Amino acid sequence: MVDKMSRYRYAPLLVFQIFLMILYILFTTYGGAEEANIKGFEDTHVMIFIGFAYLMTFLKKYCYSALGYNWFLAALVIQWALLCQSFFHMKDNMIHITKKSLLEADIMSATVLITFGALLGLASGTQLLFIAIIETAVGCINLYLMESVYKVTDIGGSIGIHTYGAYFGLGVSTAFRLRKPTGPDAAGTERLDGPTYISDITAMLGSIFLWIFWPSFNSGLAQTDAEAQRAVVNTYLSLAAATVTTFVLSAMVSHKPGKLDMVHIQNSTLAGGVGVGAVANLFIGPGVAIAIGIGAGVISVLGYRFVTPLLEKIGIQDTCGVHNLHGAPGVYSGLLSALFAAIATVDTYGSEYSNIFSAGAADGRSSSMQAAYQLAALATTLVLSFGTGFISGLIAKTKLFAPLEVHQRYDDEVNWELP
Amino acid sequence: MVDKMSRYRYAPLLVFQIFLMILYILFTTYGGAEEANIKGFEDTHVMIFIGFAYLMTFLKKYCYSALGYNWFLAALVIQWALLCQSFFHMKDNMIHITKKSLLEADIMSATVLITFGALLGLASGTQLLFIAIIETAVGCINLYLMESVYKVTDIGGSIGIHTYGAYFGLGVSTAFRLRKPTGPDAAGTERLDGPTYISDITAMLGSIFLWIFWPSFNSGLAQTDAEAQRAVVNTYLSLAAATVTTFVLSAMVSHKPGKLDMVHIQNSTLAGGVGVGAVANLFIGPGVAIAIGIGAGVISVLGYRFVTPLLEKIGIQDTCGVHNLHGAPGVYSGLLSALFAAIATVDTYGSEYSNIFSAGAADGRSSSMQAAYQLAALATTLVLSFGTGFISGLIAKTKLFAPLEVHQRYDDEVNWELP
Amino acid sequence: MVDKMSRYRYAPLLVFQIFLMILYILFTTYGGAEEANIKGFEDTHVMIFIGFAYLMTFLKKYCYSALGYNWFLAALVIQWALLCQSFFHMKDNMIHITKKSLLEADIMSATVLITFGALLGLASGTQLLFIAIIETAVGCINLYLMESVYKVTDIGGSIGIHTYGAYFGLGVSTAFRLRKPTGPDAAGTERLDGPTYISDITAMLGSIFLWIFWPSFNSGLAQTDAEAQRAVVNTYLSLAAATVTTFVLSAMVSHKPGKLDMVHIQNSTLAGGVGVGAVANLFIGPGVAIAIGIGAGVISVLGYRFVTPLLEKIGIQDTCGVHNLHGAPGVYSGLLSALFAAIATVDTYGSEYSNIFSAGAADGRSSSMQAAYQLAALATTLVLSFGTGFISGLIAKTKLFAPLEVHQRYDDEVNWELP
Repeated sequence: MVDKMSRYRYAPLLVFQIFLMILYILFTTYGGAEEANIKGFEDTHVMIFIGFAYLMTFLKKYCYSALGYNWFLAALVIQWALLCQSFFHMKDNMIHITKKSLLEADIMSATVLITFGALLGLASGTQLLFIAIIETAVGCINLYLMESVYKVTDIGGSIGIHTYGAYFGLGVSTAFRLRKPTGPDAAGTERLDGPTYISDITAMLGSIFLWIFWPSFNSGLAQTDAEAQRAVVNTYLSLAAATVTTFVLSAMVSHKPGKLDMVHIQNSTLAGGVGVGAVANLFIGPGVAIAIGIGAGVISVLGYRFVTPLLEKIGIQDTCGVHNLHGAPGVYSGLLSALFAAIATVDTYGSEYSNIFSAGAADGRSSSMQAAYQLAALATTLVLSFGTGFISGLIAKTKLFAPLEVHQRYDDEVNWELP
Repeated sequence: MVDKMSRYRYAPLLVFQIFLMILYILFTTYGGAEEANIKGFEDTHVMIFIGFAYLMTFLKKYCYSALGYNWFLAALVIQWALLCQSFFHMKDNMIHITKKSLLEADIMSATVLITFGALLGLASGTQLLFIAIIETAVGCINLYLMESVYKVTDIGGSIGIHTYGAYFGLGVSTAFRLRKPTGPDAAGTERLDGPTYISDITAMLGSIFLWIFWPSFNSGLAQTDAEAQRAVVNTYLSLAAATVTTFVLSAMVSHKPGKLDMVHIQNSTLAGGVGVGAVANLFIGPGVAIAIGIGAGVISVLGYRFVTPLLEKIGIQDTCGVHNLHGAPGVYSGLLSALFAAIATVDTYGSEYSNIFSAGAADGRSSSMQAAYQLAALATTLVLSFGTGFISGLIAKTKLFAPLEVHQRYDDEVNWELP
Repeated sequence: MVDKMSRYRYAPLLVFQIFLMILYILFTTYGGAEEANIKGFEDTHVMIFIGFAYLMTFLKKYCYSALGYNWFLAALVIQWALLCQSFFHMKDNMIHITKKSLLEADIMSATVLITFGALLGLASGTQLLFIAIIETAVGCINLYLMESVYKVTDIGGSIGIHTYGAYFGLGVSTAFRLRKPTGPDAAGTERLDGPTYISDITAMLGSIFLWIFWPSFNSGLAQTDAEAQRAVVNTYLSLAAATVTTFVLSAMVSHKPGKLDMVHIQNSTLAGGVGVGAVANLFIGPGVAIAIGIGAGVISVLGYRFVTPLLEKIGIQDTCGVHNLHGAPGVYSGLLSALFAAIATVDTYGSEYSNIFSAGAADGRSSSMQAAYQLAALATTLVLSFGTGFISGLIAKTKLFAPLEVHQRYDDEVNWELP
C-alpha cells in the first residue's frame, strides 16, 4: 500500500506544472528583440545545471540524487521564478519574455540550489520541492524590495542570491535540528557522509565550471559594455586571488599538517566570486579586487575549518558548507557594497554613476544614505531568508512531506533504481 | 595473420580522408565575413562532441568506444557533410565555407550519432564508419528536398535530423535482427548490457550539456534576433516542462514503485528539445511551448517503458532508446509543425512570416498547403531514413565489414588496449 | 618538526600573492570598452581550467594533484602573466586591463600547464610554483621579442606558447634527469604510472573540451571578422583531419595489433590545433588545412610510439608526452609559418596583409625576409625555452624546493587528505 502510493509522490508537482502552463498561456508572450543578444545567459545556464549539480556529487552514494534533484528543482524553479520576478514588471497585464528573463530566472534558481546544498542528503524530494516553491516566491519579493524599495546595487547577487539562499538553507536546517547520530546504531549511515576518490573528481568538475563562468554571472546584468568588462575583470582577479589563498591556507589549517583538503579546494576557491559580487561593477580598482579575493578565501577556509563544526554541534547541519561559500562571503560582499557606495561619487563614476546607483540617485540620496540602504537590504535579506527558511522547515518536517529516516540519509537507494 | 591485417582495418578511412582533402583543395574556399558572427556554433559543437559522447558512456564496459567512436565518426562526418550540404549551394563551382557551414556540418553529424546510439555496442567500427558515410550523403539529400523542394520549416531539425537519424538507426537494426542471446551461453555478454554507478554519472554529464545548449541548437539557424529569441524561449520552456514531467512520470511507471529510473532521467528530459524543435521559431506562445514539453516527456517516458521492450522482442535492438528520445518526439514535432503551419498567417506573423515560410509563401501556398508539405516532408524522411538504413544494414552485415560476434558486444576489449 | 613546517610550505606564495596585489594597486586600472566584446575569452578559459586540468587526470592516483595544481598554477600565473605581458604596453605608467588582457593572460598560462604536463607526478608543488613564475616572466619576454622585434605572425601561439611550453618542460626534465627506477625496490611506485578505466574517461573530458574550443583559441586574437573566421575554419578542419588520422594510425602502430591506444586518442587528435596554429589566419586554403592536420596527426602518433620511449631511455621524462602534442607539432607549425610567409603577398591578401604582417610590412620586408624572421623566432623560442627550463630545473632540484622521493612520484598521498 505504501509502495503503491509512493509511485505518486511527485504527482502534486505535475499539477503544479500544469498550473504553471496555464499561467504562461494566460499571462505571457514574447518580448522584443532588444534583449535578444544579452551576454552571460549560456554561461550562467552551465553554472546552474552543470556547476551546482556536479559540485554536489562529492558524497559517495548520493550522486544520482545530487544530479537528479538539482535538475528537477532547477527545471521547476526557472519556470516559477520567471513568473514571480516578472510579476512586478508586467505591461498590459502581460509578461514579455526575453533572453534576459531567462537569465534572471536562472540566477534566481541558484538560491534554491544553494539551499539544497545545505540540506544535501538530509531532505526528501517532496520536502525539497515544497521548500523550493516557497523560497523562490519569497526570494523574488526580496529582490523586488532590494531593487525597487531599497534601490541598492548588487550586480552579482551576493546579497539577493547567495546570502539569501545560504541563510534560507540554514533556517530550514535550524528547524530540522538534525543531530548527527552517534553510537553503534549510527554506524550504518555515517559512513555515507563523505566522498570517494572518484566523487571528489566529479565534484571538481562542478566547482571549476562555476569558477570559470563566474565572471559571466557577475556581469550578465550590466547595462553597458564598460560596466560588464569591469565586472568581468574584478571577478576574474578576485577568484584568482581567492584560489591562491585557499591553497596556501588549506595546507596551513588542515587536519593532516601540510596536506590540502578537497573541501576547501572545491568551495573556498569560489568565495572570491561571491565576495566581489555586490561590488563587481564598481570602480573598486583591480588591485582591490585581488584584496577582496584574498579576504574571501580567508573567510571561507576558516569557516570550513572552525565555523561548520560549531554549527553542527548545535544541530545545524550544512552538508556542503554553504555558509562558508555563499553565506559569510555574501555578507562580506554586502558590507563591502555599503563601504564602496559610501565613497562612490558622481565625480569618480561619471555617467556610469547613474546606471549603477540610478534609482537611489534619482531620489537625491547622498553616498552615505546609499550605504545605509545597502546595509538595510543586507539585514532584510538575512531576516527574511532565515525566517522564511525556518518556517518552511517547520512545515516540511511534518509527515505530509515524507521526511527521511536516519538510515535513509545521504543514500540514493531511497530514490533510485540503482545498478 | 588475422592480427596483422587488423592493424589496417581503418586504412580505407585514411584513403577517404585523403580523398576529402583533395575535394577540399579543388572545390572550397573561405566565405565572406557576413556569417562570421553566427551564434550557436560553439554551443552546438559542445553538444556534438561532449553531449552525445558522454550520454553514451552509460554502459559499464563500452565507455572508451562510446567516446572514441563518437569522436571518430563526428570528425569524419563533419568534413563529409560540409561538402554534401554545400554541394547544392555552390557559387562558380566553389564552396564558400563560413562559420554557418561549420554549424550546419555539426548539426548533420548529429544524425550519425543518433544512429550510433541505436547500435551502441552492437556494431563494429568498420560497420559504423561505412554506415556514417552513406547516412550523411542521403541525409543531405533529404535536407535538400525539405528545404528546396518541399520548402518546409524545421529550424531545430526535428524532422531532418532527429527523425532521420533515429529511423535510419532502426532501419539498420532491423536489417541486423540481433536477438538478445538467452540461455546459459549468453551469460558472458549479457552482464555488459547495463550501467555502473559511475557510468551513469558520466552519462548525466552528456545529457545535461545537451539539455543546456539545446536552445542554441534550435535557434542557431534563425535569421533574425527576434526569431532566434523566440526559439530560445520556446526550447528553454519546453525542456524545463519535459524535465519536470519526466521525473514525475518516471516514479509512476518504474519497475520499483516510486523510484526514479536513470534511463528516463538521462533521455526523456531531452525530448522537450526535440518535441518543440520543428516549431521553436514560430509564434506558438510560451505556454504552448510548456504544453509541448509536457507531451514530449510523456511520449518519451512511456516509450522507454513500453515501446522499447516490444521492439526488442521482435529483434530490433535500440541500445540508447533513440526511438524514444529522437524518433517518436521527432515525429510528434513534425506533426506539430503541420498543425502550426496550418494556423499561421501573414497577419499573425507580420514580416517574420516571409522569413520562416519564405519559399512556400513565394510559391503562393496557402497555410493548409504548407501544412500538407510539412507532412509530406515528414513522410519522406521516415521512408528515406528507414529504407536507406535497412539497405545499409544489409550491406554492413556482410563479412567485409567485420560484424561483431555475440561475445564481443558492448565490450571495449575488442577495440582498445585497456589498462 | 618537519610536519609543523610543512604546513607553511606554500606560505611564500601568499607573500607573492600580496606582492601581486600591491603591483595591481599601484600600476593597473580598467581599460576602455573597445575590447569588451572580444570573442574567445570564455572558450579559452574553459580550455585552461577544464581542458588542461582533466586531460591530466589520466594517472590512477594523481587526479587530485592534476586538478589541484592545474588550478593553483593557472590562478597564480594569470595574475602574474597579465602584469608581465602588459609591462611592455603601459600608458602613462599604468596598465589598462580589458577582456583582451584576460584572454592573453589565459593563453600565457597554457605554457606553464604544458610544462606541468611534462613533469606530471615528478615535481613537488613548491618546484612547480617556482618554475611557473620563472617560465611566465621569460615567456612574456619571448613573446615581446616575437611581436615587437621579430614581428612575426603566430596567431594560435604554436611557437610562443606550445613550442615554448613544451621545450621549457623538456629543459626542466633534462635537468632533473629522473630515470625510471628498475628492480624490485621500484615495484611500489611504478604501478602508479598509468591509467585506470575511469581515469581515462575523465581525461577524455579534458581532451575533448580542448578540441572543441581550439578554433576559439586560434582565432581569439584576430583583428577582423574575416580573419577570425578563417582561423576558425582552418582549425576546425585541421583538428578533424588529425582526429581521423590519429584513429587510423593508432590501430596501425599500437602494441596490440589493431587496438586503439588511449594515449594517442587523448593527445594526437589535438595536434591538428597546434599544427595549424601559427598559420591559422593565413589564406592557406581549407584543403591545405586538412593536409596540415593529417601531417600533425602522423607526427604526433609516431612521436608517442617512437620518440617518447627514446627520450625516456636517456632520462628525459615527459609524463603526458607534451613533446608529441605541443613540441613537435609546434615546431612543424613554426616551419609552416615560414613557408606560408614566404609565399604570401600583398596581392593575394589585400588589406588583410597589413593586419597579419603589419609590423614586418611597415619595415619594408620582403616575403622571404618575413620567412627568415619566422624561422628566427622559432629558433629563439627553442633556445630560450629549453635553456631557461634547464637552468630552472637545476635550481628547483635543490633541497630548498622539496623535490619528491622516488616513492612519492605519481602519488596524491603526498599532497592531499585522501578519503
